[in-house]
Amino acid sequence: MNTHSTKAFGTEAAAAPLEALNIRRREVTPHDVEIEILYCGICHSDLHAVHNDWGGTFYPIVPGHEIVGRISKVGENVTRFKAGDLAGVGCIVDSCRECSHCKEGDEQFCESGWTVVFNSPDKKYGGITYGGFSERIVVDENYVVRVPETLDMPGAAPILCAGITVYSPLKHWKTGPGKNVGIIGIGGLGHMAIKIAKAMGAHVTVFTTSQAKADDARRLGADDVVLSTDAEQMGSCPGQDMILDTVSARHDINTYINLLKVDGSLVMVGLPAEQLEIGASNVVHGRKSFSGSNIGGIAETQEVLDFCAEHNITAEIELIDVNQINNAFERLAKSDVKYRFVVDMAGLKN
Amino acid sequence: MNTHSTKAFGTEAAAAPLEALNIRRREVTPHDVEIEILYCGICHSDLHAVHNDWGGTFYPIVPGHEIVGRISKVGENVTRFKAGDLAGVGCIVDSCRECSHCKEGDEQFCESGWTVVFNSPDKKYGGITYGGFSERIVVDENYVVRVPETLDMPGAAPILCAGITVYSPLKHWKTGPGKNVGIIGIGGLGHMAIKIAKAMGAHVTVFTTSQAKADDARRLGADDVVLSTDAEQMGSCPGQDMILDTVSARHDINTYINLLKVDGSLVMVGLPAEQLEIGASNVVHGRKSFSGSNIGGIAETQEVLDFCAEHNITAEIELIDVNQINNAFERLAKSDVKYRFVVDMAGLKN
Repeated sequence: MNTHSTKAFGTEAAAAPLEALNIRRREVTPHDVEIEILYCGICHSDLHAVHNDWGGTFYPIVPGHEIVGRISKVGENVTRFKAGDLAGVGCIVDSCRECSHCKEGDEQFCESGWTVVFNSPDKKYGGITYGGFSERIVVDENYVVRVPETLDMPGAAPILCAGITVYSPLKHWKTGPGKNVGIIGIGGLGHMAIKIAKAMGAHVTVFTTSQAKADDARRLGADDVVLSTDAEQMGSCPGQDMILDTVSARHDINTYINLLKVDGSLVMVGLPAEQLEIGASNVVHGRKSFSGSNIGGIAETQEVLDFCAEHNITAEIELIDVNQINNAFERLAKSDVKYRFVVDMAGLKN
Repeated sequence: MNTHSTKAFGTEAAAAPLEALNIRRREVTPHDVEIEILYCGICHSDLHAVHNDWGGTFYPIVPGHEIVGRISKVGENVTRFKAGDLAGVGCIVDSCRECSHCKEGDEQFCESGWTVVFNSPDKKYGGITYGGFSERIVVDENYVVRVPETLDMPGAAPILCAGITVYSPLKHWKTGPGKNVGIIGIGGLGHMAIKIAKAMGAHVTVFTTSQAKADDARRLGADDVVLSTDAEQMGSCPGQDMILDTVSARHDINTYINLLKVDGSLVMVGLPAEQLEIGASNVVHGRKSFSGSNIGGIAETQEVLDFCAEHNITAEIELIDVNQINNAFERLAKSDVKYRFVVDMAGLKN
């Protein structure tokens, strides 16, 4: 396989800061597109992977999975893209394409396991994948989405992970007019969930432990804000059809399950490391559910991009240079960002 | 309100054994039927209520909520029943009849709270309700179901609670041909779930910690039996669309959630007193759910009785005399029954 050298930003070890690296990318094959990366969001899972918090990190690692850029080259069999198109790449860059889930466009459920855009053994070409903190990336066109030109580009990058991660469950659990939808946590995922749920037509209630975030929640589109530490506010909260839980720390979920209507669902998109405790009676009475959801398929990622373009939704971001990534990681670990860091890749070219 | 004395079997205190009591029942009002009770099943919740395990027990208490008998008297406005009809009464004897759930026939979700057949303040007539360990009972005809004459009568009694409690979630989660349904636990609820899920056309896998119960599970209709303590058997178990969990003791539910297919649900009908621990990643990957369900409405209770008649399903029971109730309670506390005690009320008349 022919490869070429590409500038990237990554690290050789869990304890080392990220720095400029040279990696090898394959030359475009007949079904590939090459994307000149313009912007890449920073997600908490980038941080976890770099620090090997979940185990299984391969070094060197180049994180980044909220990628927006322009197509610079297309393989001879590529039909959906041409050079100059604005394109996006999220978490998934390959899957088996043969199982029932892949055939239905739910690649996130691929029975053979999908290939992650970074830190994932590449079943087809060998080696380990490198992510979006990079000059350019080469991806099979079937795993590339079109980014509407009307969207603010850096603000669109987080739609590729944060956006699809909340859009997919909001849609699956039938968010829409007449539905009460609660959002727990106002971070990278939560702030996108507020905007998207509101645009879907739901009555959106945000639950937060911080009074300081209440005004921001309303500005983002929340109809109601409930201070979850205030028993009176919680007690007078109307029944929720669905509550989307974006919190990744240990927290009491029974309190929220009790706010659900009959047949309501509390849906986790956060991944607290510790086990969560649930009382059986909390779900038994009212036939309630505690559920989870993880990203979405390629077709649905295109759908959320188009939905966001239609409703003029982008993430609230802090745009940073590649050289600020280490500082951004430190701040992200303390949740000190409103609400997503996005890296401008222009700095890599210098 | 006119009342009359009725022989019953109950207790004046949590620590006292059950004994013969005289209680007062109302005379039939225009919408009531009076039922001469023939058989009444014993459910674990009778035991909990008598011992005040959940708090809130009113004494004297007369438990029993799986009631089968013959109508002996009908009020002047009763249209659905006549004297001599075989009838059943389960958990619910009244509800608000006005909320959206009551109007849809889901009285188990009544927003004002439904009236339980025993140990429940009677909102309409005052006092506390007395259950089925009794000569007769007076109930509004809207909360009475028809028991098909073809069913074995004592074996039909547990359908009024154990049967509907498993039928309702099996139906709600679309059990049928082509579906893999798992059942955890082979007790009063579990053994009915095996029979009903099999009759619905599902491929039924029973999970048990006891090899001794494997043959029984197969006899009851299980296609497969998995010893849950055997990692190899668990590891090779095919994906389940739904697992019905009938266990009321603390147990590891992550192990079972991991056996679910994409979009699968683990549904609790047992009520362990302790909190259950769930790893968020177990539900996030594969969009799985941990859900619960509690009995069913009156129309659905009629439906399960008709379904059981059509498929010739009754509970496996030990028929006992009223004087054996205290001994049965002791044995039930040790789960020493295959699989349900049913009390023959004839003994009360002596």
